[in-house]
Amino acid sequence: MTSADSRKVTIAAIAQLAGVSVPTVSRVINGRSDVAPHTRERVEELLTRHGYRRRRPSMRASSGLIDLVFNDLDSPWAVEIIRGVEDVAHAAGIGTVVSAIHRRSSSARQWLDNLRTRSTEGVIFVTSTLEPPLQAELRRLDIPVVIVDPAGVPPQESPTIGATNWVGSLRATEYLLALGHRRIGFISGPPQLMCSRARVDGYRAALDSAGLSIDDELIHPGNFYHEAGFAAGAQLLRLPDPPTAIFAASDQMALGVYEAVRRRGLRVPDDISVIGFDDLPEVRWCSPPLTTVRQPLAKMGLLAARTILRLAQGERIESPRVELATELVVRDSVAPLAG
Amino acid sequence: MTSADSRKVTIAAIAQLAGVSVPTVSRVINGRSDVAPHTRERVEELLTRHGYRRRRPSMRASSGLIDLVFNDLDSPWAVEIIRGVEDVAHAAGIGTVVSAIHRRSSSARQWLDNLRTRSTEGVIFVTSTLEPPLQAELRRLDIPVVIVDPAGVPPQESPTIGATNWVGSLRATEYLLALGHRRIGFISGPPQLMCSRARVDGYRAALDSAGLSIDDELIHPGNFYHEAGFAAGAQLLRLPDPPTAIFAASDQMALGVYEAVRRRGLRVPDDISVIGFDDLPEVRWCSPPLTTVRQPLAKMGLLAARTILRLAQGERIESPRVELATELVVRDSVAPLAG
Repeated sequence: MTSADSRKVTIAAIAQLAGVSVPTVSRVINGRSDVAPHTRERVEELLTRHGYRRRRPSMRASSGLIDLVFNDLDSPWAVEIIRGVEDVAHAAGIGTVVSAIHRRSSSARQWLDNLRTRSTEGVIFVTSTLEPPLQAELRRLDIPVVIVDPAGVPPQESPTIGATNWVGSLRATEYLLALGHRRIGFISGPPQLMCSRARVDGYRAALDSAGLSIDDELIHPGNFYHEAGFAAGAQLLRLPDPPTAIFAASDQMALGVYEAVRRRGLRVPDDISVIGFDDLPEVRWCSPPLTTVRQPLAKMGLLAARTILRLAQGERIESPRVELATELVVRDSVAPLAG
Repeated sequence: MTSADSRKVTIAAIAQLAGVSVPTVSRVINGRSDVAPHTRERVEELLTRHGYRRRRPSMRASSGLIDLVFNDLDSPWAVEIIRGVEDVAHAAGIGTVVSAIHRRSSSARQWLDNLRTRSTEGVIFVTSTLEPPLQAELRRLDIPVVIVDPAGVPPQESPTIGATNWVGSLRATEYLLALGHRRIGFISGPPQLMCSRARVDGYRAALDSAGLSIDDELIHPGNFYHEAGFAAGAQLLRLPDPPTAIFAASDQMALGVYEAVRRRGLRVPDDISVIGFDDLPEVRWCSPPLTTVRQPLAKMGLLAARTILRLAQGERIESPRVELATELVVRDSVAPLAG
């Protein structure tokens, strides 16, 4: 095998030709975003010209595994995302290793040690991240990483798959407006998450486009959990001029609003309309079935797994961040405003 | 190392001493139930006397993995069981491989092929089974198997972890009786499953102990799914003398009853009391929060993982079937009978 054999061109050779370090070439190959655009361009041009095929490190030659890492497995998104990833991995003859790292570095350390003993095709993090030293370690192992992000984690250096939060929120609010609602309460997610900002901004944009002024009294901070929805819902219902509809930025908070409505002796949707965000599997079985903005969680998992398999094959991916479309799912929790 | 070294006694030697086949010894070691009691006794006596330590086949020497196999990942139990298994495996530095075989032999074949390339400490099936040829193949690989069974699958040859269905159902019915209910509707699971029979029998036993006759008009067949609960609930509510409480043999069916009650313009628990079975994570967030019989799903997963790790270490387990206790979880869906 001579160095003229283009199929065997090494990362080191590309690095030398491009005048950059080996890790930089590796970052380009793995589709990471922490490479200056002109560097990326030069490296990609060289990779293409020399017909580089990713030489899979021998440790990964037959791992037959893909890793899927959550903070906690009681996340309401967990099972949908597992389903999407497992579907793709299974069809490719690959096992899906599911782990929870509980935001603890000891737990992440344990997971990474296990991963080193058995290797993996790549790692999908679901709104979870590693601390910098562990991130660096994973990078040194040259293992592809993709992030699935239903919650709007801060920008990452790895390819990220999210959903169109702003548009979803806009459409849900427009739907309420079209049914005659004018006083629409909003319960937001944690303010530090980008998706929370995108969702409240979509709500504001819809009201603004309809020429309505925004009543800040109707916007309550939340945290995505049931209890916050219950508390904010109860407060909104106690207002002297209460809203006729409440849009909660997560399904769990929407179910909290249901309970606040019930405790007040009122009914959804007869007395007040409710919309959620996520479309968790269980909300089609709540009473009444919840109208909500669907995040395509299983599809996000599916795309993440496909991306890992492509990266593991040495393919490059086009975009460091992809947002899949959200969709308004109309069920029975919204009624036209009487009158 | 001489054959006199008791720590190195082989399965073959034990088989010879016991006058049985090697697979029979292997079955005893793996705690399977398809061994005649006197054979098991003789083999266990020899294993103990010669201080047998399971010699882990080299292919499994460092798998660092445990397999968890579902029929479908949209099973409402899935995430709780994954959580229990992952907890134990993670702490042991072992990855949890989650698979869905969709009751298709092609899918099970694919999974088994993947497993052969990477090995495993053991396999936990969740109410799922392999067809006999694949079962035989798994047995030849000498891989420990445990079954987690929240649904009462037919008796298996592997160690099985279930829950006390009959007692759970008895207690729930007694609770309704203690609150003054006399006409209690019951919506059952699929009649071919043992757990369905145990649950309806527990209900009957409670009524019988209270000296009440059983009105077969109040017992409706179901299938554990939401739609069946909705349909049966609607029928029960239409009776000339409707029940004052409905006990559904699954949470999903109980939520179907909620919807039937709502559609009739009635309220839970003011107009009718409802009890479920399972305690899925989401039922604490439905409105009103559901009173239900808790199956300890995460604990069942946890015990299954511990059992696999013990079997993989060559330990023997005491009982081929363990039933963990169910527990009545009182929330807000049951009210005393006014009167």
